[in-house]
Amino acid sequence: MLLLRRCLSLARFSPLNSQRHQVSPTVALCAVRLCSSSGGGGGGGEDQRSYQHTHRPRWRHALAGLLAGSGAVLAYGLHNHKAEQEDISVQNLKKRSGLPIYSQEEVTKHRSLENGVWVTYKGGVYDITEFVAMHPGGEKILLAAGGALEPFWALYAVHNQEHVLEILSEYKVGELSVEDQKKQQAIKSSDPYASDPERHPVLHVNSLKPFNAEPPPEILTDSYVTPSAFFFKRNHLPVPHVDPATYQLRVEGLPGGVLTLSLEDLKTRFPKHTITATLQCAGNRRSEMNKVKQVKGLNWGIAAISNATWSGARLRDVLLAAGYRPDVAQWAHHVQFEGLDKDVTGTTYGASIPINKAISEEGDVLLAYEMNGEDIPLDHGFPVRAVVPGVVGARNVKWLGKIVVSAEESSSHWQQNDYKGFSPGTDWDTVDFKSAPAIQELPIQSAITTPADGATIDRSVETVTVKGYAWSGGGREVVRVDVSLDGGKTWQVAQLRGSEEGQGPESSPPPGRAWAWKLWEITAPFPHEAEELEIVCKAVDSSYNAQPDTVSPIWNLRGVLSNAWHRVKTPC
Amino acid sequence: MLLLRRCLSLARFSPLNSQRHQVSPTVALCAVRLCSSSGGGGGGGEDQRSYQHTHRPRWRHALAGLLAGSGAVLAYGLHNHKAEQEDISVQNLKKRSGLPIYSQEEVTKHRSLENGVWVTYKGGVYDITEFVAMHPGGEKILLAAGGALEPFWALYAVHNQEHVLEILSEYKVGELSVEDQKKQQAIKSSDPYASDPERHPVLHVNSLKPFNAEPPPEILTDSYVTPSAFFFKRNHLPVPHVDPATYQLRVEGLPGGVLTLSLEDLKTRFPKHTITATLQCAGNRRSEMNKVKQVKGLNWGIAAISNATWSGARLRDVLLAAGYRPDVAQWAHHVQFEGLDKDVTGTTYGASIPINKAISEEGDVLLAYEMNGEDIPLDHGFPVRAVVPGVVGARNVKWLGKIVVSAEESSSHWQQNDYKGFSPGTDWDTVDFKSAPAIQELPIQSAITTPADGATIDRSVETVTVKGYAWSGGGREVVRVDVSLDGGKTWQVAQLRGSEEGQGPESSPPPGRAWAWKLWEITAPFPHEAEELEIVCKAVDSSYNAQPDTVSPIWNLRGVLSNAWHRVKTPC
Repeated sequence: MLLLRRCLSLARFSPLNSQRHQVSPTVALCAVRLCSSSGGGGGGGEDQRSYQHTHRPRWRHALAGLLAGSGAVLAYGLHNHKAEQEDISVQNLKKRSGLPIYSQEEVTKHRSLENGVWVTYKGGVYDITEFVAMHPGGEKILLAAGGALEPFWALYAVHNQEHVLEILSEYKVGELSVEDQKKQQAIKSSDPYASDPERHPVLHVNSLKPFNAEPPPEILTDSYVTPSAFFFKRNHLPVPHVDPATYQLRVEGLPGGVLTLSLEDLKTRFPKHTITATLQCAGNRRSEMNKVKQVKGLNWGIAAISNATWSGARLRDVLLAAGYRPDVAQWAHHVQFEGLDKDVTGTTYGASIPINKAISEEGDVLLAYEMNGEDIPLDHGFPVRAVVPGVVGARNVKWLGKIVVSAEESSSHWQQNDYKGFSPGTDWDTVDFKSAPAIQELPIQSAITTPADGATIDRSVETVTVKGYAWSGGGREVVRVDVSLDGGKTWQVAQLRGSEEGQGPESSPPPGRAWAWKLWEITAPFPHEAEELEIVCKAVDSSYNAQPDTVSPIWNLRGVLSNAWHRVKTPC
Repeated sequence: MLLLRRCLSLARFSPLNSQRHQVSPTVALCAVRLCSSSGGGGGGGEDQRSYQHTHRPRWRHALAGLLAGSGAVLAYGLHNHKAEQEDISVQNLKKRSGLPIYSQEEVTKHRSLENGVWVTYKGGVYDITEFVAMHPGGEKILLAAGGALEPFWALYAVHNQEHVLEILSEYKVGELSVEDQKKQQAIKSSDPYASDPERHPVLHVNSLKPFNAEPPPEILTDSYVTPSAFFFKRNHLPVPHVDPATYQLRVEGLPGGVLTLSLEDLKTRFPKHTITATLQCAGNRRSEMNKVKQVKGLNWGIAAISNATWSGARLRDVLLAAGYRPDVAQWAHHVQFEGLDKDVTGTTYGASIPINKAISEEGDVLLAYEMNGEDIPLDHGFPVRAVVPGVVGARNVKWLGKIVVSAEESSSHWQQNDYKGFSPGTDWDTVDFKSAPAIQELPIQSAITTPADGATIDRSVETVTVKGYAWSGGGREVVRVDVSLDGGKTWQVAQLRGSEEGQGPESSPPPGRAWAWKLWEITAPFPHEAEELEIVCKAVDSSYNAQPDTVSPIWNLRGVLSNAWHRVKTPC
């Protein structure tokens, strides 16, 4: 109610609103707005404040079409009460006749907050100036200013939902001239995902465009090295198709000037280095946070993590060849990666890592051209990707096109306004993305892959076998996994496996370079007195970091870093 | 009862027992034995298995005189029921007359398990062969074989308790000849702690000999850098008095041969490097584990942690001067430190760290000769100590005498059989010290220093202010502290302080080199509806590691690594 009052005030008194009053968002829309105000501050930082609705039932559509690939938070899913009673669709967009006719030339003049932000969609003209501050994807929406929405919505498929059209309809100010409509249709917007590769049908798809999928959990513990086809896939944009013959990697920012390397150069001018490293998405196990309270992001299960063998040139060697000298470290603090995957505006995926990780002999950062002994598959970054072991998946940039040594972190959305952790008390009204560091090393993690949650265990068995994985960021080795069959009251120590072959304890990797996970297994006497097993696992790494007991206290609005004890209940 | 039966069997059938049957331990003693069997295995590994008594009430004296300094677990504190009803003291030792008279020469023949282990104490002769396996300090007891106990007990003051004498009395086999008694008295056993330095009276003493003490918690947050007098003190042995003019540091194990450095050499031949680093004892907050279930070790509160500014030569520079070359890393994996503090047998305190920490430019390991801008105080390692930032206090060896580059970890008791973490399900019967890595980097930690637990808060206040510290090992910076006033249901973010001056957010140290703690503070509206505040804090580090919620699941038999959320209850 308080919000409703705030919105009414805005609608009445906002100077921006004066001349567009008849088409301003309805009060009802205001009550379900996702974003409350624009970031304001300096620079190109995007702001993603979001209103957390006080009426829980209204959230039923919330995030239905979650963030479909862009780190931008594209979560339009809120319906308002009024809207639910209406039948709004594309047809509605055309209902509002009697509106002025505008030329494309006129529309194009409105490309800023000062001059108004206009867009076109299926022949209609929309003044979305006021909506910019509410856009869950932040000011990225300005990329469409003065032009057509269609190519953007083709890229971010989450927009193709009725309630998004409903919101748009409130902003209609006119019709595009018939001539210009014809011109637009001539420039056909093709599906940028049409040439994405085939994927294995066993994968559980969290988002089709862009493609985000994880394997069934039990497959993860079938083999120490995950077959590439089953390796979790997390794309932010369409898969680019790169010709290996003409591929070029630019290395910029060093005293030696720009170094350009072909794929052949990478393979022949630098020693080939191989590591086995586990990659994990920051959003792995997000679904458990969603059960506590809705978060924004793909609803990953426990399998947004996989382990592969990677080969390539060491980033260190390439930076040295490009002129890196110790004195560079006096001003350069980061190494930025730019992908060749891009949106319709040409904005590429980007991220950065601290330079000490990049240049350290023990950092083992690769410019990888092989995965599990073969060319890197299309979905995993062909022909070259960064592999930054011990660091969150988001910094392991695929389809690598450019490396920039710099004083600052990557300015990309994904580095600045995404992939950061916050207090459970921080909501979209109070979040300040500048207050938290970009996720690099990940914390200790483990999960149970077998048995599955809800699986029934036959009471006649003598023993029960539990399997899972455990991994920690920063090269910290997993040194122990504790398993409980009684919800955490008593604990037993699982057997760890650190290679494809043996089951026994292998010799440890050098300290701080344990990049790969441990698979674990325990066979324990079946507790016949139990009516249900509550199986729990928790791991400990070489810095003796332990997992938190429960999800709520680590809940955060983006649902990242979900590493509480994993629990599975099996009736028996 | 089962144990009782096992003990009876042993007493009857053990071949070792046959000729000493009349003086074998009583069944009652057997029922309270602390150690169930000797380690057996190869090498000099000490075994410290301990019997966990099934009768909880009998534990009332347990660990009363806890491990007074040695890592060896000297916890004789168990009384047996029979003993409690008697009045046993030194006098009792003399009661058993009619026993044979032995010469010192005869006693000296019994210095092994094969020949029997005899010792003398105040004129009595004791055959403690059977007790060796039960000794909580392990086979270290053999160091006294064939001689007098007095000098050892002077070193480990925990033995000076009635129940220890009571146990000893059961093993009496004779009297020492009057002549040899006179000789012994001539060699007066002085108190090795007599020359320990004066300490500040505000310190809370956990053990006087050796000296172990922590400041009142609220003092910790009074200043970012802890004054040396208040810095927690954790000594394993008497404080050695080293003449700085003749002090020599030996560096061994490198191709260059042995390098010997005077204090002057250290100060003049190598650049002086200064860091601010927090040191924490592995046993900090052990008292919270003791509340869950008794553990072995000094009952530290929350203040076995402090922060100081250290200056000295970098270990890296000294190792390079001693001949370290990159190829050394092919065989050398550890750098061992030996202290000049020693027990009566000449055994020195020792520990080791991984060589990559020692040699890394970013490791910042110091051979420190200054603490807070002055000569290092006697209690903190004068004239030179190792400062290994980010690593558990136990590896920051004081009164440093020797550095050894080696393939193996230190063989010291404190590296091999102490300062390791185990599963809560592991007890003294099942523990295998080889199965866990020696603690190096410590996990994320935080605690509330103000208000104190149990302090009453005046209901008339408008706001409540909470203060504390937060720190993480491995150079991981504390990036956030969450505070709850309602036991963890809701959370607010505290303000962090990373230097002596400012309250605001300071610029971060380089990644992986945040050696010093953050002090934190929050002032929140007083929740007038509450009858009691349950204040909780939890911190997050730059790898987004979080503290575990509760103590039980991280409980371990040595009570180390106690880093669950800290909770304080204040009635109001």
